[in-house]
Parts: sequence; structure tokens; C-alpha cells
Amino acid sequence: MANQDPLEKLNSMERPHKDFINIMPLQTGSVLTGAARRALIEFGDGYSVCDFCTGRLTDIANPPVNVFVRDILPPFLGCDVATLTYGARDGIFMVFHSVTKPGDVVVVDKNRHYSTAVAAERAGLTLVEVPNSGHPEYKIDAEGYKAAIEEHHPVMALVTYPDGKFGNLLDAARVGEIATEAGIPLLVNGAYSVGRMPVKMREMNASFIVGSGHKSMASAGPSGVLGMSAGWAEKVLRVSQINKKKEVECLGCTLRGVPLVTLMASFPEVESRVKQWESQVAKAQRFSEAMQRLGFEQLGEKPHRHDLMSFTSDIFYEMSKTVRERGYFLYKELKERGIWGIQPGQTRTLKISTYAATDAQLDYVVDSLADIIRKYS
Amino acid sequence: MANQDPLEKLNSMERPHKDFINIMPLQTGSVLTGAARRALIEFGDGYSVCDFCTGRLTDIANPPVNVFVRDILPPFLGCDVATLTYGARDGIFMVFHSVTKPGDVVVVDKNRHYSTAVAAERAGLTLVEVPNSGHPEYKIDAEGYKAAIEEHHPVMALVTYPDGKFGNLLDAARVGEIATEAGIPLLVNGAYSVGRMPVKMREMNASFIVGSGHKSMASAGPSGVLGMSAGWAEKVLRVSQINKKKEVECLGCTLRGVPLVTLMASFPEVESRVKQWESQVAKAQRFSEAMQRLGFEQLGEKPHRHDLMSFTSDIFYEMSKTVRERGYFLYKELKERGIWGIQPGQTRTLKISTYAATDAQLDYVVDSLADIIRKYS
Repeated sequence: MANQDPLEKLNSMERPHKDFINIMPLQTGSVLTGAARRALIEFGDGYSVCDFCTGRLTDIANPPVNVFVRDILPPFLGCDVATLTYGARDGIFMVFHSVTKPGDVVVVDKNRHYSTAVAAERAGLTLVEVPNSGHPEYKIDAEGYKAAIEEHHPVMALVTYPDGKFGNLLDAARVGEIATEAGIPLLVNGAYSVGRMPVKMREMNASFIVGSGHKSMASAGPSGVLGMSAGWAEKVLRVSQINKKKEVECLGCTLRGVPLVTLMASFPEVESRVKQWESQVAKAQRFSEAMQRLGFEQLGEKPHRHDLMSFTSDIFYEMSKTVRERGYFLYKELKERGIWGIQPGQTRTLKISTYAATDAQLDYVVDSLADIIRKYS
Repeated sequence: MANQDPLEKLNSMERPHKDFINIMPLQTGSVLTGAARRALIEFGDGYSVCDFCTGRLTDIANPPVNVFVRDILPPFLGCDVATLTYGARDGIFMVFHSVTKPGDVVVVDKNRHYSTAVAAERAGLTLVEVPNSGHPEYKIDAEGYKAAIEEHHPVMALVTYPDGKFGNLLDAARVGEIATEAGIPLLVNGAYSVGRMPVKMREMNASFIVGSGHKSMASAGPSGVLGMSAGWAEKVLRVSQINKKKEVECLGCTLRGVPLVTLMASFPEVESRVKQWESQVAKAQRFSEAMQRLGFEQLGEKPHRHDLMSFTSDIFYEMSKTVRERGYFLYKELKERGIWGIQPGQTRTLKISTYAATDAQLDYVVDSLADIIRKYS
């Protein structure tokens, strides 16, 4: 192996599990639609999106980037102005970098994604975290923002809606009210909501919202969207001194490639699936109940209001201590049963999304887990 | 039309010209290889690249991102440490943002890409430009960096190698010497060289090099690479205080999507095509001579050393004043002949890349231009 040409490793990149039942939270909202798969092939070559560019990405008429960004995204996001980003984190950094200055304080929820903290670090900001309620619900009380704002005088507030660990939905609209009263803007990190569930920036009394194409909009990555109120858009989308067609915070153009076209091609289905959100919640709740009957404790809000869930699974952890494959046995057993999404080595907590699976597939997941418990007991 | 549902516009996104002879400088270096096209389909779904992530993008072993970033890219770029970016401009901003502070001066060539200036603006920097020699060659004299450095005390130097207007290759190694003597690092913008021609950071006495997947590495966009010397890598790739697996300047992970897999899948062919660079230069020179026989003046260095070229084409500009389609006639005539890459409306200067076309196809391009001249004369 030591003498193998590293280039040979590039010759056979495959995903043998791609037709498995997928319960991996990162992936269930971004399985491509048929339309996106066709767009992927059509626009695969680098810079295809720019065939008819006249100097600004969001002005391109063919493919209709201009229509998507100006006419379609703002009503969908409930904002005045939208733009394209590489992902939710990149949108957050764009906002931080435009609206704050190094040394400023931003108040966030304790359940925030790690990339929020890294974006803050890159922008030289200090984060103050509103605590959660701890085990087992880890809920964020919107009123906690009031105390944090009074004490720390932040220039901005951010909510993770929902968070990516427990799938909790805090009362974002109330946080928006509190932020508005304090005279600071609220940014909603909707990486796990925009494209899955109905969510409108304005209804949350927010000034910014970010979404993720490759998490929740049936798109290839990297891709994302950023929505803003008109007033803040002037600041975030300020144009360059040297070129009035180029936005500084976008470095001119952001999403100049095929993920943008998959985002656009999937959009009609995404808009339509958002309207079916209640059935997704019902499915998640049914799954949670079945898991609890098996003895797994669901963390986060109950009843649960999102497809993303964590369960404690001490029983698998105990088993992992006694088997040859250690923590990997569970991944292996599930893989053999055509189930994808539990990280190799993971046994103590199961992070699962029910979004892409049918009820019948989820029954099969539950039965498989029961089967594995029996096998190793 | 006013009442058309904007969503309908998303239903039929096609590139009817995708099998044309392509001479568009943005696109000729990023036509996907067969391997990349297969990878595109395999890894189209969002976050597929992260199937086996253990916390850091560049550690992923399947697909072999770790091998690509650690073992393959550094020798290819002639650097110590490499990482992934969304594109050349994003790599430049990462370096600016890590290595400089607002108010600093950076010395660049007058032929720099607009995005260099926008990245500088985003980082709060002042650019000082080393002038070019003006019409018709627009050459940059490396010695010009010496005077600029002595006068303006920049913290960094940048060369565009080659520039994207004329395809000129300045003496980057000499600029690197001058920068080294002045104690400042040099960044090479290789958006049009990395993946097309042999180019090694170390041989140019540089500390940074950026390349573009979607311009010159047969990859879908957005994608890019950044190479660094070991010393500077510590600064640019500093890890987060809150998570030691996450690099601040990458916001944790950058290229978490399908463009990365196309970049990797195409790499063996890219590495091999770079070795054929002399035949590309010979082809470009033959084309330039044929164009000059037709009466077009080639701008930039002569004899030319890159596939990217500009020609003045006053004859088409004069014609455009007299025809019904105005400036669009040339685009239309070429399109009818299966030739893609002259921007709609463009007649005064023709920006052309010979990279993706064969000699026979380029003969056909020249014959077609001659034909159009005859038709409208």
C-alpha cells in the first residue's frame, strides 16, 4: 500500500449505499429531484451558468437566475431582498462581516451550529449564549434573549431554527420582538427549516434569514440563500468602489456553478413539499413513539415538531463494549440491512432524520433496530 | 408574459450550444472529463461528500479527499500545504483576511482580475498597481514591483499569472525574488494557469498560490485550491478556539459538495494534460498568426505564451453600426456556425481561448470569421 500511486485512489469514487434508506440528518433534505439531476448533467461543465452573463450573477437571464433571485426567493423567504451564497454559514459570515465590527457581541442560542461560532471567530466577534434547559429537552426560552441583551449589549441576535442536534424550534418570533425592542437585528439560521417547513423571515420579526441548499433544498452543494430586509440589504450587498456591478461581500459572484442550477431546478418541488410539512411532523412523531417503545429516549422537545431527532441509545453502547467491532457493529448491522445514516462508531446517541423515508421504511428501521437488540442481547 | 408564473421559467433549463466549438476563455479549461461526469452523477445529492466525515472535510477518506489534499495537491502546486476553496477569489480573500489587517497595502499588477480588487476591498486593503506597458502588449515589468514596494511599503504582493484579459505571463519568479528581498510574501493568482500549464509555487519564490477548478481544472464550479508554504499555513489554516478540527478561515468546511468530487475525478487527466502545455502554446500561436493574416491585431505578448488571447476587431465594430442586429450580428453568425464563446454584443475586441479546440476546429473558426467579413463587406 505504501507504494500505491495516490492517483489510483481517484479512479473509483462510488457510493454503493446511495439507494439505501437514508436517515442521516445532513442528507435527507438534499436528495436531488429528477429535474435537479437533469440540470446537474446539463450544467456540469465549469462556468456553464455564466454562458450569458453580462457582469452580475444575479442578473443572468438564461438560466433564469434573475427571476429566481428577484421574483421567487423573496416571497418564499418572506424577505425583501435575496441573494445566493455557498451555504448557511457563508451567509452568516457575510452578515457578520457587513453589520458588525471586531470586538462586537452577538447573542445566540446555546444550541447554535458550530459554524456560527466559527463565523463569529472569523469576524472577530464575541458570542453570548442563551442557555438551554438541559437534559432531556434542551429547550431555549426566547425570554433568555432579553436578559442576555440587557447584560451584554450585543449588536445582533441569532437564532438557530431549528438547531441541528435536537431539532428544537424555539419561539423565533418572540426573539425577533425582543431584538426589535432592543433595536438590534435578528438573523435566523434556517439551514434545517428553509426548504423543509414553512418559514418566513418577516413573521419572525427578523432582518436576515439563511438557508442551505445542500441541507434542505434538494440541491447539490455548496449552495445557500440569504434573505434580508431592504434596509440591511443596502449594507450587506454594497457594491464595489471599482465596479458597480460587483457586490463586495459576494466577492463579485458567489454561486457560479452547477449547485445553483440544481437549487433552481428543484425549487418548484421544494416549494410544494414545504406545504406538506404537517405530514412530515406527524411521521416524525410516529417514529419517535415507536423508538420510545423500543426503549430509546428521545431528546429535545416532545411532542417533536421536526424530522431531526436525537435518541439516547445506552443499550447499543453497552453492547459495543462486548463485541469485536466495538462501536462499529451498529453501523455494520444497519448497512447490511440497507439503512444509511448512523455514523460509523456512533452508539451512544442516534441522530436521525425521518424526512426522506416513508412510514413503511421507518417501520423497517424500527424493526431492524429491534432485531439488532435481540441479536446482541 | 406579465402574468406568467415565474416558476415556469425554471422548468426548461438547457444549454443547446453545449456541443459547439467552445472558445470562451471562462469555459475552455473546465469542460468535464468523462470521469468527472460520472462523479457528478454519483455525488450529486447534497452532502454526499460527507458520507464518511469524521469532523474535518480534508480528513475524509472515502471519497479520498485526504489523499487528494495532502498527497496529491502539494507536489502538483509546488507548495507545502494545500486546502480547498470555492474558487481563486475565495482563496485570495482567505489569505488577505488572515495575513493582512485593514488599512494595509498590497501591491498587484495592473492586469489583475476585478475580484482581486473586490477581495482587497472586503478585507479593507489598499491596492497599489504596478502599471503595464499599455497598448498593444500590456506587459507587466517585474521590476516595477521593486519601485512600488519601496514607495508604498506593502505587506504583501500579488501577481496574476497569467492575467485574464491578455493572457500575459509576467516574470513571477523575479517578482518573488523582489518580494522575498523586501520580506513580504507573494501570492500567485493561477486561475488561468493551475491545471493548464506547469506552475509551481516554490519555483516562483511565492508563499501562496490559488487555482480555480471551474476555470482551469476540468471541474464543476464553484471550486478552487490554495497552496501555501508551511509557515504561512499555520496562520491561514489556524483552527478555531472552540473546535480544534475546524479551520476559522474555512468556516469549518469549504467545498462540501459535488464540485470537489469532479475536481478529484478529473485530476489524473489534468495532471497529464499539463505536460502537453507546449502543444497548447504552439496551437495558440498558429491561431494568432491566422487571425493576424485576417487583419485582427493580437493584443498582449507576442509571440503569445498562453491560450487566452484578445484581438482588436474594428472591422466587426464598423459592420455592427450598419446592420439591423447591431453588435449582436457577430454572436448570431457564429452561433449559426456552431461556434460558442463570443459574448452577445461583443464586436470591438474578441477574447478567445484556443484551449479546448483542435487545430481543425480553429481553422474552421478562422474560416468562419473570414466568411462573415465577406458576407458583410
